[in-house]
Amino acid sequence: MQYPNNIRKTYSKINVSHSNRGMSLENALNLSNKYYLDKDIALIYKKPTPIGIVDVSYKNNKKVIEKAYFKEQSTLDYNGLYRGKYIDFDAKETLNKTAFPLSNIHEHQSIHIRNVIRHKGIVFLIIRMNAITYLLTGKDYINYIDNTKRKSISYKYIEEKAYIIKESYQPPLDYLKVVDEIYFKGE
Amino acid sequence: MQYPNNIRKTYSKINVSHSNRGMSLENALNLSNKYYLDKDIALIYKKPTPIGIVDVSYKNNKKVIEKAYFKEQSTLDYNGLYRGKYIDFDAKETLNKTAFPLSNIHEHQSIHIRNVIRHKGIVFLIIRMNAITYLLTGKDYINYIDNTKRKSISYKYIEEKAYIIKESYQPPLDYLKVVDEIYFKGE
Repeated sequence: MQYPNNIRKTYSKINVSHSNRGMSLENALNLSNKYYLDKDIALIYKKPTPIGIVDVSYKNNKKVIEKAYFKEQSTLDYNGLYRGKYIDFDAKETLNKTAFPLSNIHEHQSIHIRNVIRHKGIVFLIIRMNAITYLLTGKDYINYIDNTKRKSISYKYIEEKAYIIKESYQPPLDYLKVVDEIYFKGE
Repeated sequence: MQYPNNIRKTYSKINVSHSNRGMSLENALNLSNKYYLDKDIALIYKKPTPIGIVDVSYKNNKKVIEKAYFKEQSTLDYNGLYRGKYIDFDAKETLNKTAFPLSNIHEHQSIHIRNVIRHKGIVFLIIRMNAITYLLTGKDYINYIDNTKRKSISYKYIEEKAYIIKESYQPPLDYLKVVDEIYFKGE
């Protein structure tokens, strides 16, 4: 069966869009970082999850971890170098439609965000909620938590302050385009 | 028994020096990074070692790693933010007295060093050999490997090109003092 050209095109667009929407935020970011690396645009890596090792054995002179548990990252998950600047961020998804629970960001991570701002690095959160991916700057995050007793960030604040990261085929999440707008405007 | 002042001083100096010499390079760097963090001088962290997970179980709703193996880091072990600049390095010790074996640095790490230089970050190696701790800039490292077929860096080259990092009590290895000299001269 043959479809006319325009139908095929639409179909393929929907397909692409669907495939991104089904992609986990972490996967989309890893693919985007690989794209940035391959195109020599930026060097951004996800840090490995820290573990606490309980037991190891040796097989053919190779260390094998026999028991370990996951530990909390004391910094944010992603960092690297873009346009000569230090860049640092974390990515979080929530199914909550009206607010982003602050329990997603640990106290030592909030301290780290303050530290990076003070030391003149670029720092932000990537938040996916209501099927939209947002970039919230570290400054706007800190401003919010310093002026609230709430245990979550209202979706209204995110809609007002955060920047939408558009989904595309390659890279799946072009968050550096938003970084350009915010941090390199006029350069 | 009372020693004259000058003898006591000498004794205490030797003591400090001894205690640092017994400290592993990794431990000395972790303590130095903690010192820099506590004094708000720099934000530099060692990346967790990446692992490949083979098997997990769940105990009281908590994920436990039942089998895993160590993977190679595709970047360098340490990175962070200092004086508004991206900083990235690795630390290696060798018992070899005449040369630093290049097998210590994997091919993808050499590529990463080239990438950081091109993207205008600060990148270097900290090398401990013959009981001295050196800082070799990424540029001098790349210059060497690009112009040799040897499988090691001669100690002569390290003595000629690398900067000595002095050991002290706190921080145990004040490598940022050397970074200041090389990368922030005249600022």
